[in-house]
Amino acid sequence: MKLRVDIMNEKKLSELGESGLIKSIAGMLEYFEDDELFKGVGDDCAVLKEKDAKEYTLLTTDMLVEGDHFDLDWQDPWQIGWKSIIVNISDIAAMGGLPRWGLISIAFPDDITVPFADELFKGMISASERYGLNLIGGDTTHGDNLVINIALIGKVEESYLCLRGDAEVGDLICVSGDLGKSWAGLELFRSGKKGYTDYYLKPDCRLEFARKVAPHVNAMIDVSDGLASEVTHIAEESGVGAEVEKSKIPISEKTLKTGRSLNKDPMSWALSGGEDFELIFTVPQKELKNIDGDFTIVGRIIQKGLYLMDEKGKKMKLEGGYDHFS
Amino acid sequence: MKLRVDIMNEKKLSELGESGLIKSIAGMLEYFEDDELFKGVGDDCAVLKEKDAKEYTLLTTDMLVEGDHFDLDWQDPWQIGWKSIIVNISDIAAMGGLPRWGLISIAFPDDITVPFADELFKGMISASERYGLNLIGGDTTHGDNLVINIALIGKVEESYLCLRGDAEVGDLICVSGDLGKSWAGLELFRSGKKGYTDYYLKPDCRLEFARKVAPHVNAMIDVSDGLASEVTHIAEESGVGAEVEKSKIPISEKTLKTGRSLNKDPMSWALSGGEDFELIFTVPQKELKNIDGDFTIVGRIIQKGLYLMDEKGKKMKLEGGYDHFS
Repeated sequence: MKLRVDIMNEKKLSELGESGLIKSIAGMLEYFEDDELFKGVGDDCAVLKEKDAKEYTLLTTDMLVEGDHFDLDWQDPWQIGWKSIIVNISDIAAMGGLPRWGLISIAFPDDITVPFADELFKGMISASERYGLNLIGGDTTHGDNLVINIALIGKVEESYLCLRGDAEVGDLICVSGDLGKSWAGLELFRSGKKGYTDYYLKPDCRLEFARKVAPHVNAMIDVSDGLASEVTHIAEESGVGAEVEKSKIPISEKTLKTGRSLNKDPMSWALSGGEDFELIFTVPQKELKNIDGDFTIVGRIIQKGLYLMDEKGKKMKLEGGYDHFS
Repeated sequence: MKLRVDIMNEKKLSELGESGLIKSIAGMLEYFEDDELFKGVGDDCAVLKEKDAKEYTLLTTDMLVEGDHFDLDWQDPWQIGWKSIIVNISDIAAMGGLPRWGLISIAFPDDITVPFADELFKGMISASERYGLNLIGGDTTHGDNLVINIALIGKVEESYLCLRGDAEVGDLICVSGDLGKSWAGLELFRSGKKGYTDYYLKPDCRLEFARKVAPHVNAMIDVSDGLASEVTHIAEESGVGAEVEKSKIPISEKTLKTGRSLNKDPMSWALSGGEDFELIFTVPQKELKNIDGDFTIVGRIIQKGLYLMDEKGKKMKLEGGYDHFS
């Protein structure tokens, strides 16, 4: 393995940003000659095509840190446990697969009680049970803050496997459910107001819907950092462009109402808020008839450029997306 | 999945202790009916026997937390990266397997620079390259402290698979290399003195040796929490007892010298210090001729009881082991 280090300066990570960091890491990891590695860094999951196996193996991991991903003043331990599993299953769903096995790592601070830990595990187990995931091992240790890492192994049939990089010019860009609902709750907590916090407290993923659409779509990704960021990932990985119609982006009445009550624009939550765990997928026009369920067409894949179009047809640059280091 | 919650009181985790917590979690996880799960919680790795697969799949994860598992004043980022991979490969080695693929999760504090992150990854990649592991994905996020989680997937042939629970009465208890060397370095740093800190700063694992002995041993475990704790795990999982001869426990001259310079007993580091990442294995007398290399016979498996015998043959209770919550 030869190292390729592109970035070597005194920049702090907060200046480099998360996507810069991921690019830097991806550049360092020049894989061994590995016949069984189908896709490494750069998608929702790494993908293995193991010899003798009929299905592909999916691997994903996500770390949740107290103060950054949850707040003990707002969320109870059951909700934190539930969310920690959902964010990972959402990555498996985005590949078209099914979750199978999970490993839990937790750093517990000194003042955590046994009932707290029990509730945390119960939340994890409820989410796992809901989606057919078996939690089979892990690591517990001590830390100043509560930190949870989940690693999942999933499986996917060849005809169901969806990558970010398979979008084609002419594909329609679709979004499941509605966006901005998680950030709406976060904004309410931050402002100390009451309102629509249900989804923020107990987000869900779209595993069943993903399984229905997977055989028919080209590219798919889950919405963890907002629509702008996810559509950009699809476009960059696929070597194409995208245009999204702002007026089509689905935002629920509850989320709109939260925006009005806080005097904030819910569109920015949909574009850049994240943690909605909905799916964004691109589908050829001719496959559209095979897809039914709760989704909205919001744009299309073009040759190049990333655009957001307003009601009057005015084109803006599509940008945004939650950055963990900004 | 039905929950079984045995412990439900206001005890803090620091009172319950790590093994109590693991028992509590293991009790909660009543697995789905799962034909492919060979061994869940309770060994160095979880073990899958997937349909169509010729080998078993090994899964393990370990979390390292700044201040608990490493100290930025003592270790450089390369060393932290190296160690984070070694501790996980050691778990794969203890099962008799080979590491294949790894997922990295890291929470970076604000003040981490890009060169720091680069060195951290270089340490990880060096350890991975050394032992044939391919790092294929991960998650980076923000946190107040540096936290690293590694999840590994390994493979093992049926004839190489070693579990903690397969020790048999009459087996000889063996230890690779020497013990207490990691804790020696930690004690030097804690006291602000110079000396033998090499192994603490760059620990190693015994993958090659594990592969040589695996077909011949009954039970095997790696030494992450000290000999007393690891022998207890083997005995409990196997439903047997063990007696260890104190005078046989291998401690190097460098470690003994460190003990003298600090006026501390290195035997307690060997018994309870941990992080040596040596192997403890039990082997039937008749298989001993098939094993060669750097190891020491320190005791034997008996029907019941856990004993440490001193030079005069006096029996003490075998106890100790590093507890992350004590």
